[in-house]
Amino acid sequence: MKRCVYADHAATTPLMPEALEAMLPFMKGDFGNPSSIHSWARKPREAVREVRATIAECIGAEPEEISFTSGGTEADNWAVKGSGRGLLVSAYEHHAVLNAAAHEAGGGRMVVYARPTRNGVIGVRQIADAWQKGIGLVSVMTANNEIGTVNDVGALAAEAHSRGALFHTDAVQAVGHIPIDARKLDVDFLSASAHKFNGSKGIGFLFVRKGLKLASLLDGGQQEDGRRAGTENVEAIVGMAAALKANCARMVRVGKRLDGLAERLRGELVAAFPDAVFPGAGAPRQLPGFVSVALPGRSGEGLVHILDLKRIAVSAGAACDSRNTQVSHVLKAIRFPVRLAKGVIRISLGAENTLEDVRRIVDAMR
Amino acid sequence: MKRCVYADHAATTPLMPEALEAMLPFMKGDFGNPSSIHSWARKPREAVREVRATIAECIGAEPEEISFTSGGTEADNWAVKGSGRGLLVSAYEHHAVLNAAAHEAGGGRMVVYARPTRNGVIGVRQIADAWQKGIGLVSVMTANNEIGTVNDVGALAAEAHSRGALFHTDAVQAVGHIPIDARKLDVDFLSASAHKFNGSKGIGFLFVRKGLKLASLLDGGQQEDGRRAGTENVEAIVGMAAALKANCARMVRVGKRLDGLAERLRGELVAAFPDAVFPGAGAPRQLPGFVSVALPGRSGEGLVHILDLKRIAVSAGAACDSRNTQVSHVLKAIRFPVRLAKGVIRISLGAENTLEDVRRIVDAMR
Repeated sequence: MKRCVYADHAATTPLMPEALEAMLPFMKGDFGNPSSIHSWARKPREAVREVRATIAECIGAEPEEISFTSGGTEADNWAVKGSGRGLLVSAYEHHAVLNAAAHEAGGGRMVVYARPTRNGVIGVRQIADAWQKGIGLVSVMTANNEIGTVNDVGALAAEAHSRGALFHTDAVQAVGHIPIDARKLDVDFLSASAHKFNGSKGIGFLFVRKGLKLASLLDGGQQEDGRRAGTENVEAIVGMAAALKANCARMVRVGKRLDGLAERLRGELVAAFPDAVFPGAGAPRQLPGFVSVALPGRSGEGLVHILDLKRIAVSAGAACDSRNTQVSHVLKAIRFPVRLAKGVIRISLGAENTLEDVRRIVDAMR
Repeated sequence: MKRCVYADHAATTPLMPEALEAMLPFMKGDFGNPSSIHSWARKPREAVREVRATIAECIGAEPEEISFTSGGTEADNWAVKGSGRGLLVSAYEHHAVLNAAAHEAGGGRMVVYARPTRNGVIGVRQIADAWQKGIGLVSVMTANNEIGTVNDVGALAAEAHSRGALFHTDAVQAVGHIPIDARKLDVDFLSASAHKFNGSKGIGFLFVRKGLKLASLLDGGQQEDGRRAGTENVEAIVGMAAALKANCARMVRVGKRLDGLAERLRGELVAAFPDAVFPGAGAPRQLPGFVSVALPGRSGEGLVHILDLKRIAVSAGAACDSRNTQVSHVLKAIRFPVRLAKGVIRISLGAENTLEDVRRIVDAMR
């Protein structure tokens, strides 16, 4: 029997054995509450302190700039809701940003939307076009979760700053996959989620630039230096750091290999389906191993099911919301033709995928 | 060498082996995102569906009344912030409720505080005394986390309803330890946290009575039937259910044993320290195994350190905030004398504690 091919890493990734191994001691003997003052707190507290530094180092930040959250959704909600004044978000953000922005709009806050290019990019020009007086926060994702396009976040942050606004990037799809240096990019807020880079579910972090204040989203105890209440999810935090560190160490090598596999995959798809269209492929940069493809006249959801029967996992539309069968807001935002949009599938390869997997996927689609 | 005695279960509890065992498959092969439409989603999705029913059954609710959160703090924040109109909270709530209420007050919402009795109880009388026109939500904890007193939640909910308000109870300290039946108690919202009943950290739930609407706290994807966004923390959810189920099955037996141990502990403490005072001991009901004791002229924090050197874990003041050395808001609220308040330690026994542990604790304190 052929082995399973999991090619839906943009939806979630397998927990790394290194991460699980790092977590287990805190799920057994070292279960203490880091806020206690007795010895049972020592190891958990020191572990959280140490891995905060590990995570900071992986993304070019300082430890006190990292606040742990329950995942990307909480990090995005916190950044979007915690900062005052008008809001400029791109129209193809993840729903965690879009719906947080809609919540704010419902409360009377000004929210404007920047439209991405047809290639799936938000650049300085798109910010300028959408600009209105009173905007205090610009939020644009580092990489899009449906089409894999990567934005020039450094340029966007500089543009926001030159206009007197702060800059947040939802980097959930990018952290652990492409190099991210918060200091060099000069962003103010940056969201990440562990389960997208082989950590466990239910944990993520928000980078908040030193000196900036963000209104709290969860009030209560004085954890995270008073920034975010709630007993620290020690085991998941430790696992997240182990996964991020391991991914950062192999990032260049794995990235190159995945770029090669994606190239190969696109080539074989074009050979098999000469009318295939690749949303976002015209962008200057794509996430490694990420292929979004539309097969005219086919149903993306149908293809997912056919591949599933052949033990291959891919996705139609956005992963986190793929039971929703409407045409995705991302494809709408980039003006992708509706007749093609229903035939879109997303193939997102990960470190464990091989050339054999690529062939299996194309064979199965044929 | 003598074995360690962990007697700080009100701060956090060891993860049950049954819970870890239930979690591991979802941290290995069954890592899929429940929102995906391929086979990798099936087991995680079904597991979440099944254990939602398990949890509901344990607390007398229906599955659709359970929403998973990142813990007690998120559940409390959600209930307090998500409901409109004026707010009545007790003055000795956990900071997750008190600081969420303060956040609301800062936004202009009416917030009034009910003062507990000197015995550490909030009853119908205390609600009536604090009542003001315009109150739409009453929030009173099931059991206090510092002094272990248990309130008559059913009577409080009825009082709130009779006055036209909804009722929330922070049951974080109670769920898994004393029988809770949300239907019989007739509460509208109820918060719980897994790590307080031998589940993992970073997970909890909010019970929301069927038919009631609560404004969302985390916006984004359509998880939890659109009530709470964010990829489900499958492994932690499954572990929480296993822990709750196991605790509910042994609750009566363990509760009786812990009541006996607490009685014994109080007796030995009085024998050793004739001037010992027990905050909350005059309440009609206390959590099993829970002893809060003040030794006049002693420092609670000093005692914690002395016991720690003897490999015994207890707590001074509130666990989640015990690095904060001010006199606790709980002891202030029950008008516990300030000169005694600094000598308070909290001993919270769990299922694995023994009579030998009780003797070790008293010997060490002597």
